[in-house]
Parts: sequence; structure tokens; C-alpha cells
Amino acid sequence: MNNFQFYSPTEFIFGRETENKAGHYVKKHGGSSVLLHFGGGSAVKSGLLGRVKASLEAEGIAYTELGGVKPNPRDTLVYKGIDICRENNIDFILAVGGGSVIDSAKAIAMGVPYDGDFWDFYSGKDPEAALPVATVLTIAAAGSEGSGDSVITKEEGGLKRGAGSDLIRPRFSILNPELTCTLPAYQTACGATDIMAHVFERYFTNTTEVEITDRLCEAVLMTMIKETPRVIADPANYDARANIMWAGMVAHNNIVGVGREQDWNSHGIEHELSALYDCAHGAGLAVIMPAWMEFVYKHDIMRFAQAATRIWGCKMDFAAPENTAREGIIRFRRFLRDIGMPLTFDELGAKTDDIPALVDKFGLGDGRTGGFVKLSSEDIASIYRIAADPKLI
Amino acid sequence: MNNFQFYSPTEFIFGRETENKAGHYVKKHGGSSVLLHFGGGSAVKSGLLGRVKASLEAEGIAYTELGGVKPNPRDTLVYKGIDICRENNIDFILAVGGGSVIDSAKAIAMGVPYDGDFWDFYSGKDPEAALPVATVLTIAAAGSEGSGDSVITKEEGGLKRGAGSDLIRPRFSILNPELTCTLPAYQTACGATDIMAHVFERYFTNTTEVEITDRLCEAVLMTMIKETPRVIADPANYDARANIMWAGMVAHNNIVGVGREQDWNSHGIEHELSALYDCAHGAGLAVIMPAWMEFVYKHDIMRFAQAATRIWGCKMDFAAPENTAREGIIRFRRFLRDIGMPLTFDELGAKTDDIPALVDKFGLGDGRTGGFVKLSSEDIASIYRIAADPKLI
Repeated sequence: MNNFQFYSPTEFIFGRETENKAGHYVKKHGGSSVLLHFGGGSAVKSGLLGRVKASLEAEGIAYTELGGVKPNPRDTLVYKGIDICRENNIDFILAVGGGSVIDSAKAIAMGVPYDGDFWDFYSGKDPEAALPVATVLTIAAAGSEGSGDSVITKEEGGLKRGAGSDLIRPRFSILNPELTCTLPAYQTACGATDIMAHVFERYFTNTTEVEITDRLCEAVLMTMIKETPRVIADPANYDARANIMWAGMVAHNNIVGVGREQDWNSHGIEHELSALYDCAHGAGLAVIMPAWMEFVYKHDIMRFAQAATRIWGCKMDFAAPENTAREGIIRFRRFLRDIGMPLTFDELGAKTDDIPALVDKFGLGDGRTGGFVKLSSEDIASIYRIAADPKLI
Repeated sequence: MNNFQFYSPTEFIFGRETENKAGHYVKKHGGSSVLLHFGGGSAVKSGLLGRVKASLEAEGIAYTELGGVKPNPRDTLVYKGIDICRENNIDFILAVGGGSVIDSAKAIAMGVPYDGDFWDFYSGKDPEAALPVATVLTIAAAGSEGSGDSVITKEEGGLKRGAGSDLIRPRFSILNPELTCTLPAYQTACGATDIMAHVFERYFTNTTEVEITDRLCEAVLMTMIKETPRVIADPANYDARANIMWAGMVAHNNIVGVGREQDWNSHGIEHELSALYDCAHGAGLAVIMPAWMEFVYKHDIMRFAQAATRIWGCKMDFAAPENTAREGIIRFRRFLRDIGMPLTFDELGAKTDDIPALVDKFGLGDGRTGGFVKLSSEDIASIYRIAADPKLI
């Protein structure tokens, strides 16, 4: 196990009707003038935004609204949010929505006290300060409600990049599974895929002697394998939604990933797809992550065999562990297909002809990247080609 | 799943040589005048206390020492600590030691800003303020390094009681597994038993639809089952120590227990043993917890069968699940015996004749207590009697 630091100071308030406590928790965490940040019309139409506003008003907390966050949130709205915060002396940002809204809120939070361009933080610079951020979560997926991460897309050129800092870990996050019971099956499945991908990015590692985090990763994955088909079949199943919602947080606040080298190439390779085609991140991951597995599994067959047996319940082929490793990848793809995810470039609407452009946009040049297997640009092209025509399916 | 709040704001610094960063983190978390709280001579002799002091001095942080914490920490030293803090304008308490030292530090932290008797907090009162507490952990066991709990024993009469508040969750905890590599096998096994008991107290629940926390509980338990025999056989095994140390935190900061009714009767019933005989808490749990299981398993045979199959790897007896449930309890006792724990009153040095006094001290009277099964005084007597003469062994 490697040395590590772990810090997850977010206060989580989980369960039915908890959005009505938003005002109470803003006050508890020191907010007095709030930017209320949200996405499209669903938070308004469902009445959620109204309940959150009523809760702020009941505590005498002022707020300014900024809606319009889109999936794959853009830098343009972040700049606008920074201006609004400065003009209105905002001291607290409350994101009501999913990962895109929360990531946009985090970007604004870092940008407000910073003299330069907030994009610096998405180009490798560490922030020194940020406004406090909190969330009312509406979809189990990105894990942004408990993480110190944010991903933003540059409108011009479609560059999609991430930033990370403990300063943008939410002060509190309200998680009410009821809010997710009306999500369409496709979005639900995209979220579930993202959650599982967050765990797999940590699970495939070269760090040895990490039994505790291996087992915790497997715990989250087995939960997702049990609960996701339940909510696809029965969207209003509160308990299955609740298990998925908490699993989504656990998957990404890094409690399952500490002390080990992590990979994250699947996320990077996928980001180019959602940036180019504006597809859902989870759908892109369903196409890319098994393709990545198909490309790298020979690097550590026993780790893939462990995943297959412990997570997917495959029987270990002791004479040929490679068969077990391959079976685990096949089972993952079957699971994704069963919950309605695309598995190939075709099914996603991506084009094989775009592969050179995707690799070019990835921008690795002659370098290598990743934790489990260090990939070259040519390797990334191979993974896109596998995604176009997978074998272990 | 039940509604819940989860808040674990402790910053964890984990790995080799991390105690040398104590001064840095005290400063980061706002401390300027520290009470350095510790136990017996081992922290001094090993050089650990010296390294922590050097680290404080390097940051220009003043400190006052208070050693002498004993296992099952006493109220008398807490009163002394409160006086010292007030006399020296202490603003931060750094506990260097195991659960007893940390629990004593937490009691002092609540006592300093309080006008009344600190024991009020161990009699059900909620504190409104507390000095910040941090830890340098020397044994994986109590989980106090990541919890909001503290247990103190009243010198007069041997009353052992707990307090809990988010205010006493440590600001930071330094976990260096190297510090545990010199622990005797018996203490190591006691710690491991305590860790496993913290999980079982949460695992046996009447709350349904808690797959995520079930799986997380099982993850910690399977890790302990793998790693504990390794450190008993090879005490200086850093990696096995590291897995156990992090498992010990995860077992008790409540990430594996949220959203579900918990039990905690085994802890309560054991507390009377360690208060009367001054035995190690973990050794008492090794005697009591399987006895409690033997008494209650018929309340939910399928949950015990699930534990047996998922945690202990027993084959499910579909024709007679009760056999599987019983097999799980037997496997737990065999595991405890293999790591050197006592299993019976005799082996612990407890006396059957004392059972009426133990039940009397428990103080339940005609009431009932617990989560999974609500026990009467007579039930508790039965559990002590099973502990004296277990059948599933």
C-alpha cells in the first residue's frame, strides 16, 4: 500500500424530503448570500427548485439564480457565473442538479477569488481559495457531490479538462433518492455506468497489498450489479435508487481508491468522445471502458481474473486464468447491454473515420499516460478501434 | 434504507514516517498551544513521542504533556486534563496512542469549555462545544481516530459509559502502520477483534434494502479475515498492518453503517466485563460477541446465513439454512481461537458467579435494549451464561 492523504469533509444528508433542509445547512455552513446554480427546466418543473428556494427563504438567506447548465458543462457559463458572484457579493454556491451543475459550480467557486482566468485550474494550476460549494443532487452518476473534482468543456474547440482540489469538496450534499425516481432509463443507466467506471479506474492498479480497497471496490460494484437492473425494471423503486445513490458517492470520494496507483485512461479517452459528439459521458464509458479492458488485460491476467470471480461470480479457470479474465470483460459488456447501454462506436453514433482526430485532440503526442498501463497515442487509437469492433462481446 | 446524516471531516494522513508531520497538521488546523496526551512508557521508549515533539517544536507550537492514560481510561485523569488545559490556555489536544488515549482526549476536549461535570456527556447530554482533537494512532482497534465516540470508566464504582458527538471527531489523524509493527500478538488480536465487532454491530440489523452497506461491511470483515493471521504470524508485515489499520478506521467512522438500525448490545455487555475484570475490550468481545450471536441468530436466520456464506465462505445449506447460520458462528469462534483470543468466561478469567452482579451493573432493570434484538436483563444473563459454556464452538 502507498502512503496517502484522505479528506472527505462533506456533510451528507441522505433520504426522503431532505431538500427541504437546504436552507438550514447553508446557514450552518456559513452562507448568507447564495448563487443558486442549476440546469434546465426539470428542476423547475418538478418543483424541486421551488422547495429549495422556500427553504432558503425560511432561513432568511438571499439568493441569485443562474440556470442553464448543459451536460458537459461549458466555460462560457462559468465566466458568467463568476461575474454574477462578484457583482452580488455571493459567499456560497448551491448547485441543484447532477454532476454537470456541480462541476460548473465548483469552477465558479474557484474562479471568483482568483485574479486570472479560471481555466488555469483546468490546465494544471492549484487553486489557493474557493467559495464554499454545496449540492442538492438529482442524479446518481458523477460522484461530484462528494469529490474534489470538476470537469469543464471549453466551448471554443471542445477541449474537455479536469481540475481537482480539496477546496472544492462540497461543504454539504443533500441526497434524496426520491429525486432520481423520475429519471429516464437511459440516463439512469448512463449514471450507473459512470459509477462503475469510477471504481474500475481505481481497481485496476499495479499497487500490491491493497486488500481493503480491493474489497471496498468490489462491494460498490456488486451493489451496482444487483441494484441497477432493479431500477431499470422499476424506476420508482426507492430502495434500489437509494443504494445506487450512496454507492455513487462512495465510488468517487476516494475511500475505495486510497493508497493505490489509479488509472483514469478510460475517462480521458471517453472525454474526447463526449466532447466531439456531445454524447452522455456514461454512454461513452460503456463503449470505451470494456475496450480499454480488452486492450490491457494481458498486463495483469490475475487481477482481471480476480475481478471476474469476485465481482461477476465467474468460476476460476485454474488451468487457463486468461479465460476467466476474458469472461469478466464479456460479463461487463453483457451487463451494460442489459441495462440499455451502447457497446460500439456504431451504437454510440461515433465514426471510425474520426479516430485520428480523436487521438489528435487527446493531445498525447509522443508521450504516454495512465496508471495501470502507460498508453501511447497509437495505443489509444487501438482502443478506439476495439470500441468500433469489439471481440470480447 | 433509513434516512441518515454522515459526516466524517477528519483529515487522514496515512503511511510511513507520517508522525513527523504532526506539527505541520496541528498548525494547518489552527492549534498553537497543545495538550500532548499519551499513555504509558511505550510511546516514550519507542522514540515516537520524541519525534512528535520535535515536529511540534519545528513549527514553533507550544505543548504541555499529560501521560498516564490506562486501558479503559478513567474519569480521574480526564478531570486532571481539563484543569491543565484551563491553566495553560490549551487550544488543541493531540492524542498519541490508541483508543484509550484518544477517548480520554475527547473527554477532556468536551470538558474544557463546559461549566458542569464532563460526566454529563457520558450520561446522555449533548456537548455544545469542544476543543479540537487530533491523533497519532499507535494501534488499530477502537476506530476512535475517525469516530465521534468516546468511552470512559468512572474510577469509583467502575461504571463504563460512552459519549458521541460530531464535535469530537478528530480534525486530523496520523496513521503510520510501522508504529503497530512492534505490538505483541495478543494486543494485535484484541484490536482485530474490536474492529470486526464494530462491523458486526452494524451488520446485524432489521433494516432491509441495505445492499451497499452490507457489502461494505463484508469488505472490511473479509479483509480482517485475510490480514489478521498474517500479522499474528509475521508481526512486522507492513502491508498486512496497513490493511488492518485502514480497515479499523473504515469499520467505525460509520461509512459502513449509515441508513440502518444498528445493535451494539455486544459492546454494552462486554463493557461490564472489562470494567469488572479490567480485561482487554477486544478479548471481552471475543467471548461475548459469538455468545450474543448464539443467543440471537434465530431472530433472522437468513441474515446469519448470508454472513456465513458471504463473509466466511460457507456453502449455503438450502434445505436447512439454520445449519449455515450456525456454521458462520462456529467459523467466527475458530478464527478468534486461531488468532489467540479467549472464547469462554474461564479463558478470559471471568466468573460465572459474577453474572448476577454483571447484569445488575448493566442497569437495565425491567427495560429492554438493543437494535437487532431488544434484550431484557434475563436475556443478558443468558448471554453471559452462553459465554461461560458456549455450544457453537
